[in-house]
Amino acid sequence: MPEPIILVHGGAGSPAGGRIRNEDEVRSALESAVVAGSEVIERGGDALDAAQAAVEWMEDCELFNAGRGSVLNDFGEVEMDAALMDGRDKRVGAVAGLSGLRNPIAIARAVMDHSPHVLLAGAGAERFALGHGFDRVPRHHHVTERQIERWSRERDGAPPVEGADASLGTVGAVVLDAAGNVAAATSTGGLRGKHVGRVGDSPLIGSGTYADNPTCAVSATGNGEVIIRAVAAHETAALIAYKGLGLAEACDVVVRERIGPLGGEAGLLALDASGEIATPFNAGIFQRAGRRGTGRVATAISERELEL
Amino acid sequence: MPEPIILVHGGAGSPAGGRIRNEDEVRSALESAVVAGSEVIERGGDALDAAQAAVEWMEDCELFNAGRGSVLNDFGEVEMDAALMDGRDKRVGAVAGLSGLRNPIAIARAVMDHSPHVLLAGAGAERFALGHGFDRVPRHHHVTERQIERWSRERDGAPPVEGADASLGTVGAVVLDAAGNVAAATSTGGLRGKHVGRVGDSPLIGSGTYADNPTCAVSATGNGEVIIRAVAAHETAALIAYKGLGLAEACDVVVRERIGPLGGEAGLLALDASGEIATPFNAGIFQRAGRRGTGRVATAISERELEL
Repeated sequence: MPEPIILVHGGAGSPAGGRIRNEDEVRSALESAVVAGSEVIERGGDALDAAQAAVEWMEDCELFNAGRGSVLNDFGEVEMDAALMDGRDKRVGAVAGLSGLRNPIAIARAVMDHSPHVLLAGAGAERFALGHGFDRVPRHHHVTERQIERWSRERDGAPPVEGADASLGTVGAVVLDAAGNVAAATSTGGLRGKHVGRVGDSPLIGSGTYADNPTCAVSATGNGEVIIRAVAAHETAALIAYKGLGLAEACDVVVRERIGPLGGEAGLLALDASGEIATPFNAGIFQRAGRRGTGRVATAISERELEL
Repeated sequence: MPEPIILVHGGAGSPAGGRIRNEDEVRSALESAVVAGSEVIERGGDALDAAQAAVEWMEDCELFNAGRGSVLNDFGEVEMDAALMDGRDKRVGAVAGLSGLRNPIAIARAVMDHSPHVLLAGAGAERFALGHGFDRVPRHHHVTERQIERWSRERDGAPPVEGADASLGTVGAVVLDAAGNVAAATSTGGLRGKHVGRVGDSPLIGSGTYADNPTCAVSATGNGEVIIRAVAAHETAALIAYKGLGLAEACDVVVRERIGPLGGEAGLLALDASGEIATPFNAGIFQRAGRRGTGRVATAISERELEL
């Protein structure tokens, strides 16, 4: 039986000033998200359940651009995207442009489990959630003072807050469970100041999120538009399946030779069923953490490697 | 200089009774769509312009489930998805859940040309279009008597109209121009009776639509949810790029070994920069047509091969 692995990320980007101001706080939050996933595994949950739990924890934490703490769009409102995929059977669920529901990744899971569809957007996604036992939260639940300040400065043409980045803070998790199954989950508020209705890479299967036991599980983050054009997560799996690359090499090729040449910055959070992990990025930072079995929880932000 | 090729499709499916009732009418419409694309090439347009023109023609033709003639969702309303991709530079544009704009593929093109984003959904896509010179059409513009009748029968539990299929009639085009560039475009009303907000494979880059000069251009149609899970269009390109398969073999593998095992029916419309074409399907019919240069326009519906 493989040793379970949980990896989480809190986004990649190049914040103003070269670094974020609250590294300790972010490391602590990433650790807690890993623990939230670990607890699910310890209680007998599978990779999919654990990935969902880790992402839900980060959605509820206002440090990240997902769930509560999401960036504001050009109308000053929150619209959230999320997806998850089970590497056992390629089942998927996703939502886009969601608001008024506490945990987008939980709605994506309900789409996976209870809908004939895989991606629901906007008011349709909200209606689906309300019809499947989820309670509404006021739209202001997801709106934090910090994001109001950043959005207002950007609207007024003021220089960005030091340590801030318009796209930093998407969250994701990839998990390997003891049965050898992998899963991926990603959730985001998208890009600060985005056009109302903009859908990024996170909820698009094969772009921001992908999982397939024979190849890998990937949660991508960074310039969503470039990640979509590169079909980055599925490209990683294809390089493994058809070009015979190892996980780390495949991820490197996607970041350096697919995303970079299109002018994008990104981080890939990836693992495979053999227990290999890779977290390459071509941005200033990639906020991530992980744990092998019940070992120490490791974190990395500007460090190139995440050493479990 | 390669000889230009235009391929179009009007959807794949397994209609009640095994065949559609209006084959002659559909063949004639497909021929006209090919000619609409050809005229663009003859006037010096490129593959992208020609693919867009062919799809716009089919959106305006009420025989197909795209633009006018789109199926109705579970509220009895039209929500349309569309995407296009330029194989030269991997530029993309897409819209989802659109209503009230005449040609979704034209809005997708405007997203490609004038937005920093690649996918806009719902009211946000409408706002973008109105801000970029497009006129609103009344929502009833896209609603036809034929689709009202089919939707009403389904709602009332009556057996489907002979020749009808809830998902048949998505449209798409793939084009090779004289400069050796390929492009793909897809547009759809989705699945009849779909949940409000459901997004299918058509607007998702790598799933229903993909184009990249070194590999191929693909427009997929069929069971959208399965096409998304298989990341079908990008999987085709990956089998060519990394496994060394030819276009026809790659398309066959995707239809038979990727989409079939997930329980889906689909048709792939594909070509590459060398002038190879492939149009495999595992459904009852795949409505398609094509032309090489200024040659004869060929059509195929239940025929296995499209012979140009």
